[in-house]
Amino acid sequence: MNYKLEHIGIAVRDLEVSIKTYETLLNTKCFKRETVESEGVITAFFQTENTKIELLEAINENSLIHKFIQKKGEGIHHMAFEVKDIKTEMSRLAEEGYRLLNKEPKQGADQKLVCFIHPKDTSGVLLELCQELNS
Amino acid sequence: MNYKLEHIGIAVRDLEVSIKTYETLLNTKCFKRETVESEGVITAFFQTENTKIELLEAINENSLIHKFIQKKGEGIHHMAFEVKDIKTEMSRLAEEGYRLLNKEPKQGADQKLVCFIHPKDTSGVLLELCQELNS
Repeated sequence: MNYKLEHIGIAVRDLEVSIKTYETLLNTKCFKRETVESEGVITAFFQTENTKIELLEAINENSLIHKFIQKKGEGIHHMAFEVKDIKTEMSRLAEEGYRLLNKEPKQGADQKLVCFIHPKDTSGVLLELCQELNS
Repeated sequence: MNYKLEHIGIAVRDLEVSIKTYETLLNTKCFKRETVESEGVITAFFQTENTKIELLEAINENSLIHKFIQKKGEGIHHMAFEVKDIKTEMSRLAEEGYRLLNKEPKQGADQKLVCFIHPKDTSGVLLELCQELNS
């Protein structure tokens, strides 16, 4: 199964400040903002030539983004790979011994089904698998 | 100027262990290994559909990868964007107020000229600009 980097997620303290930072840096406008209540985050997306950048700000103290920033500060939070069939890929990885943080795909930002892999099984990287909801 | 994500760099403790982890995960073989003496690292590269993954292990205690792991543990270390003309892009970013960690492009892994931007100016992300040496 071929992996395509769908986006890199960056945990930020202040979404408005970081949107300006990345608009100038990448020389492109943020093309979408979205609140994901279930994850306690507001997000902003940027399109680069071959992948997206997602900025994430916590909207409450239970959000994993809040906890990440408390512990590590702002920075890259996760990388997300798009797969064609998330359930098949979850099964393959579980059989290979990778621990999945959710046993069933759950709804994430940007119209996706998502699953996270435990960072202990990926050299410290929080890795998201995702699949377009309508694919 | 259009940014293309050339690779994501991941700091790891043991390159051989992490190569196996990523070969199984991404379902693809590591296609290149390289030592970058000047940075004190050994590296291994993987090709995904639209970008590369670079694993980095420190070969001495002066390496920034060693210091990163001491402080934060294994995980995503940097993201690298390919630009067509690194000097022009460095000038543009310097004028916009981004602090560059090297004033002139320097030679990095994988036949590239590289420049790093200070994480304080990029929401905590260590961001590399790179340009193919022969482009």
